[in-house]
Amino acid sequence: MALAAARRVLLQAGSRLGRRGAVDGARRFSNKRVLVEKEGEAGIAVMKFKNPPVNSLSLEFLTEFVISLEKLENDKSIRGVILTSVSRARPWVRSPAPGKKKKKRKQSSLAPSVLDSLEGASPAGGCLMALTCDYRIMADNPKYTIGLNESLLGIVAPFWLKDNYVNTIGHRAAERALQLGTLFPPAEALKVGLVDEVVPEDQVHSKARSVMAKWFTIPDHSRQLTKSMMRKATADNLIKQREADIQNFTSFISRDSIQKSLHVYLEKLKQKKG
Amino acid sequence: MALAAARRVLLQAGSRLGRRGAVDGARRFSNKRVLVEKEGEAGIAVMKFKNPPVNSLSLEFLTEFVISLEKLENDKSIRGVILTSVSRARPWVRSPAPGKKKKKRKQSSLAPSVLDSLEGASPAGGCLMALTCDYRIMADNPKYTIGLNESLLGIVAPFWLKDNYVNTIGHRAAERALQLGTLFPPAEALKVGLVDEVVPEDQVHSKARSVMAKWFTIPDHSRQLTKSMMRKATADNLIKQREADIQNFTSFISRDSIQKSLHVYLEKLKQKKG
Amino acid sequence: MALAAARRVLLQAGSRLGRRGAVDGARRFSNKRVLVEKEGEAGIAVMKFKNPPVNSLSLEFLTEFVISLEKLENDKSIRGVILTSVSRARPWVRSPAPGKKKKKRKQSSLAPSVLDSLEGASPAGGCLMALTCDYRIMADNPKYTIGLNESLLGIVAPFWLKDNYVNTIGHRAAERALQLGTLFPPAEALKVGLVDEVVPEDQVHSKARSVMAKWFTIPDHSRQLTKSMMRKATADNLIKQREADIQNFTSFISRDSIQKSLHVYLEKLKQKKG
Repeated sequence: MALAAARRVLLQAGSRLGRRGAVDGARRFSNKRVLVEKEGEAGIAVMKFKNPPVNSLSLEFLTEFVISLEKLENDKSIRGVILTSVSRARPWVRSPAPGKKKKKRKQSSLAPSVLDSLEGASPAGGCLMALTCDYRIMADNPKYTIGLNESLLGIVAPFWLKDNYVNTIGHRAAERALQLGTLFPPAEALKVGLVDEVVPEDQVHSKARSVMAKWFTIPDHSRQLTKSMMRKATADNLIKQREADIQNFTSFISRDSIQKSLHVYLEKLKQKKG
Repeated sequence: MALAAARRVLLQAGSRLGRRGAVDGARRFSNKRVLVEKEGEAGIAVMKFKNPPVNSLSLEFLTEFVISLEKLENDKSIRGVILTSVSRARPWVRSPAPGKKKKKRKQSSLAPSVLDSLEGASPAGGCLMALTCDYRIMADNPKYTIGLNESLLGIVAPFWLKDNYVNTIGHRAAERALQLGTLFPPAEALKVGLVDEVVPEDQVHSKARSVMAKWFTIPDHSRQLTKSMMRKATADNLIKQREADIQNFTSFISRDSIQKSLHVYLEKLKQKKG
Repeated sequence: MALAAARRVLLQAGSRLGRRGAVDGARRFSNKRVLVEKEGEAGIAVMKFKNPPVNSLSLEFLTEFVISLEKLENDKSIRGVILTSVSRARPWVRSPAPGKKKKKRKQSSLAPSVLDSLEGASPAGGCLMALTCDYRIMADNPKYTIGLNESLLGIVAPFWLKDNYVNTIGHRAAERALQLGTLFPPAEALKVGLVDEVVPEDQVHSKARSVMAKWFTIPDHSRQLTKSMMRKATADNLIKQREADIQNFTSFISRDSIQKSLHVYLEKLKQKKG
């Protein structure tokens, strides 16, 4: 079964903390949904998502994403990864689609520094990607928003996503934002602490590189051990309850009432755009 | 025994999470200390406290309060509750009176959205009421204050009240405010995150309604499940240690030294007013 | 063995929560590295560190420090302690020196209020001292900084120091500051919540006294019980894992690669100053 297979892939990725020796010499590798460009001298890899129309976190996408991360972790020339989207105009990660998704992304296990340069809307899964990074830079475009909007869809953010939200913006801000499904425009995202920096849209890439340079001044092993110390409890909790969470979500999302609620929301979205 | 009976009432209220079917058709119900006015079309109930002189959280008051909440939870026409006080001029909840109190209010189990419109001083129990709500609006009157001032009285806030304080304003702010018994005027309460909004005194009610309207745009089940996810750990911890906490408090508050400390504080209050 | 003996001393100090009766009448006591001046009428003791060149947290220093604190806890005339440094020009606590240190300072058990008046750089151990205090006042001199810079040295802050950091500045701010080894100048330290107040350098002492006077308006027992409630979980966690943490740190710090990393950092420091 595809879902079970993907979970195995994700578990394997998640269970490994160190870096292994296999060096990948290629300057660039790509598959259908994830494009990786390596800047060897700088020690940086840029990972671009290209899963149209909205970078949905589908099983196929997540599988490619994890494999790409694994390759980079095993590549000694890479000390940091920048996540971004190929297409600027579109939201780079879509709201959840029932039955197609496993948001069980590995956490805390990434050896290199990870930066998220946010150029587009980042609801739900997009926000999840951002939360797992070390630093978040957002383009200063009021049309872009970031947040966990699950409640708007009639569903609930899973506990492990909530935990990352609380760790990042605090308990009260997370409670309010999760209940209301708040999508924060750049200025508010910065104020609440959901992103670390807001810069003009054409400076997101250069800013990402200069921030990465600052992180590279820290010995890799100190930074990695520190990150693991900060995130281990949250990640362990996710791993411990993974199966139960998948069962709960699958059963919840399959209910007629919830499917209807999702349908209503998607119709609203269509009308907005139409 | 009155105390034991009340605890049973509160426990029963606390153990039920869902909503039951019994619809209460009355537009208004009231008992000695709690007045409830329903605005059926809007889906809102306004709960007014009228326990003079200072809305003390007495056993009688809490019993009426819990029964009123239960009725509203079972009333399908009500989606949100606004807490307020009948008398503006007076503090609506009094500082603890030894032996008369059970601050074991149920948490997290309320189906409707709850808003607190704070028009008056809210020390100790008043602040507790506010913390358990989803949103806090405070009248912009520098004479009004909110906070947990237990330390001023020579006593200590119970752990479960501390937990709610930490969840709302963060660990460091809570530590400092609890040690000093800080009562925050509106601007400071807003800054520290203890209230969500400060508005002119004559706009508290209209603001409460407009905020409620915003919360009503979220599907009820999503919002309720989210709230439960955010508060369950804290509530479970209270329930688990309820008996031990009651024993500790009763024994602590009965000590001669503590009674004397309370007496000194109350005398000071009298002199201030006299 | 000196290390084991010191640990016993520290454990004994940490295991006692109450105040005992033995009154110490001396106006002033001192040993090699810690000077204590008592201001009996005010109920204040000023503890000055004088461990040149940089107030390193050596075994000898920590032993004297703990003994001095014990004396003050047993002295009924003292309600509060102000920590400071004899020499202003120099950082008052040095970065960790391998094999010479036991940062197992007792927590939460101090009866009197403790204020830290920061007049100098406070990296690592200096920041630890500050975090364990009730209130932090920093001199407004941009040359002074405070923070946990372990990652710059190629090491990692221990979990119990991280816990205190998170409690004080929140999870996200702590994660970022620990990964980058951030040393905050006064304005930034105030903004992130690492210190409570920044005042002109010549007013640090008078401010410390006026803040202490405010804390003295709270009944001692309320304040102490509140502090214990706020810090007990963190302190218990440290005590529980103390042995394992010492073993881990000793083995980590003894590695050739880590020693080399420390050496590189110290060389850089020398070049800066030279």
